[in-house]
Amino acid sequence: MKSVMIIADGLGGRPTDWEGKTCLEAADTPVLDELAARGATGLMDSIGPGISPGSDTAHLSLFGYDPYRYYTGRGVFEAAGIGMDVRSGDVCFRTNFATVDEEGKIADRRAGRIQQGQDRLQEALAQLSSDKYPDVEVVFQTSTEHRGALILRGQGLGDDVSPTDPHELDTPIAESVAEDEKSRKTAEVLNEVTEKARDILREEPLNVEREEEGKLPANALLARGAASYPDLPDVGDKYGITASVVAAGALYIGAAKIAGMEPKEAEGATGTVDSKIINKVKLAQEELERGKDLVFVHFKGTDNASHDHDPQAKIKFIEKIDRTFAWLRDNLDWEETHVGFAGDHTTPIRYGEHVADPVPVLMNGPSVRRDRVEAFDERSCGEGGLGRFSGNLLPILLSYSNLGKKFGA
Amino acid sequence: MKSVMIIADGLGGRPTDWEGKTCLEAADTPVLDELAARGATGLMDSIGPGISPGSDTAHLSLFGYDPYRYYTGRGVFEAAGIGMDVRSGDVCFRTNFATVDEEGKIADRRAGRIQQGQDRLQEALAQLSSDKYPDVEVVFQTSTEHRGALILRGQGLGDDVSPTDPHELDTPIAESVAEDEKSRKTAEVLNEVTEKARDILREEPLNVEREEEGKLPANALLARGAASYPDLPDVGDKYGITASVVAAGALYIGAAKIAGMEPKEAEGATGTVDSKIINKVKLAQEELERGKDLVFVHFKGTDNASHDHDPQAKIKFIEKIDRTFAWLRDNLDWEETHVGFAGDHTTPIRYGEHVADPVPVLMNGPSVRRDRVEAFDERSCGEGGLGRFSGNLLPILLSYSNLGKKFGA
Repeated sequence: MKSVMIIADGLGGRPTDWEGKTCLEAADTPVLDELAARGATGLMDSIGPGISPGSDTAHLSLFGYDPYRYYTGRGVFEAAGIGMDVRSGDVCFRTNFATVDEEGKIADRRAGRIQQGQDRLQEALAQLSSDKYPDVEVVFQTSTEHRGALILRGQGLGDDVSPTDPHELDTPIAESVAEDEKSRKTAEVLNEVTEKARDILREEPLNVEREEEGKLPANALLARGAASYPDLPDVGDKYGITASVVAAGALYIGAAKIAGMEPKEAEGATGTVDSKIINKVKLAQEELERGKDLVFVHFKGTDNASHDHDPQAKIKFIEKIDRTFAWLRDNLDWEETHVGFAGDHTTPIRYGEHVADPVPVLMNGPSVRRDRVEAFDERSCGEGGLGRFSGNLLPILLSYSNLGKKFGA
Repeated sequence: MKSVMIIADGLGGRPTDWEGKTCLEAADTPVLDELAARGATGLMDSIGPGISPGSDTAHLSLFGYDPYRYYTGRGVFEAAGIGMDVRSGDVCFRTNFATVDEEGKIADRRAGRIQQGQDRLQEALAQLSSDKYPDVEVVFQTSTEHRGALILRGQGLGDDVSPTDPHELDTPIAESVAEDEKSRKTAEVLNEVTEKARDILREEPLNVEREEEGKLPANALLARGAASYPDLPDVGDKYGITASVVAAGALYIGAAKIAGMEPKEAEGATGTVDSKIINKVKLAQEELERGKDLVFVHFKGTDNASHDHDPQAKIKFIEKIDRTFAWLRDNLDWEETHVGFAGDHTTPIRYGEHVADPVPVLMNGPSVRRDRVEAFDERSCGEGGLGRFSGNLLPILLSYSNLGKKFGA
């Protein structure tokens, strides 16, 4: 049997979201309600009770990896997510192109949200290397706007170093400081590379053009979120399965790639409320048909709307998800497939940040023990037959499909 | 937003408590039932399913600290709870004044439950020190009756030593034995101090007076419960909050103090069924108004009555708690406050000791997803929307108020 795990980021809400209801309660979701009536529901603490999860730690935990053991920091997921080839031993950083003034102080942390020519800057930065440690390979790649990732690759690189991004304006680029002996080499290389990037970017014709156009030059590279590659067993080793991920956000693609899932890009998927998410589930179906055991599908719009304090946008996106489930209802081979649907954390509209309130979970498929709940929302799921549990959505789902490995004999 | 966490010690009961009902079911609790109807309920294993918690380990777990990682022993909580200044590296003991006969055998482990003059003994024992290890500071303080605490302070003191209290009559004071190399110094100092305390107390005029009055002399100091200071992050570091504790029992005050809460004393609070607990919640309200993010309020009477196998006393105390909640219902700013109420463990009337049965939990406030439960008792809470979870009551409550820290990004 096959499995599809679908996560709507920041799906969970609070009664303060909209007229005494959560957005999920306020939304019109006939298909999800129908699936709730056919399946089983429950509440999940994505990491554990009382723990406000990051998106990265939450996904590790949903995949069945203890984030307290495996989480190294966000940089590595971002680097993997933008398509970089991240390997064991690598130390990764999230980066920003920034604007530094003549005194060396930061004038803009995002280089005026640069929109064009980042590929030219990337090409120029391909020559980055360390004179002091020539054995260390330096790899840089841009992603969207000012964003990018930097990988330091070599022997004996720790990841316990402070960022060069001071997160403040009008101060110089910070010197990275190692917090332990093992990370000293990393900090030294990062500081040297930061200096060299300044020299390279200063000379870049693109920046001369930008200044002539009255735009802020992208004349510095700031790094943060140092993270070494987490040595986790991939889903092949851990569960004996093959898997794909269909997502738009770099973080989710990255986490899934590191867990051994193959990234697949759906047409029109944007990682926003405007995303053509129907294409994601159609692609998931194709991946199952191509032989994958599991497809992980990620919708981001719910979280974006929550961070924007926009209940209407969240309700509308939930209703789009509901219509997307109609396609699954009508097209999946329900005799042979299990579908798990949940949030990765709660993001209430008023607060706009992640909180610890548990998220609703819905399970459908032939192995699922149907409960009496007939609506899919936080309060109904609180009465569901799955009860309340912590993380591990993926292995629970796999087990319904008789996949995964036994612990013990 | 603000939070109030209220624990009724040993609140949980069993159907064998009173005519087929738990004491909480038998008690008349209109206010708690009203709050249950307005809020959400559930069941909590204070540490984990099947684990009978001590009061100390339960409270660590409720505060969000893994007791398997941080619990070092009871002595340190008692020492902190009676107002001693406990520091990292200290090894603490609970102590008893005892009566030893002329042969050096223990005649009474509590020195006739001595009621007066303990301050004079404490003053005399202020000269305690170690000749062998003059770098070790020795601090002793009495609390109630025969009880007190002893702190050994210095470099390289382990806490894995056996007690000098043999917990038996008619045997000599036990020699403390170190269970590991790191604790050898501790055992040596403890044995030396125990010997010196004998010499000091033997000469004490108070004991001459006691013998003349036909009372048992307090001529020995017995130590037990060795515990080093637990190096846990306080609630400021862990959650970014300020907090107060309103409790009467030394253990609870001590645990909360070590977690970084400021102890506040309510008038007429005794830690027994006669306690004026209304003053505790009034003081909690004042602490919130003074700017604290969280106040932890502890009621002890439920546990005392349970240990005494007295269902009527427990029912009566629960009804007093109910009236206390009426004050909270009428006086708290419910738009801006979350209140969590639970037991720390179950203490059934017939058995009179802590058991692992999960305890009822009630959550109220604007962020709480209301469930259908309309009564506050063990069985009703078993149908509640919070489901069943393990410990972490404090971070769950903080998260409702948008407090606490995110794990991951």
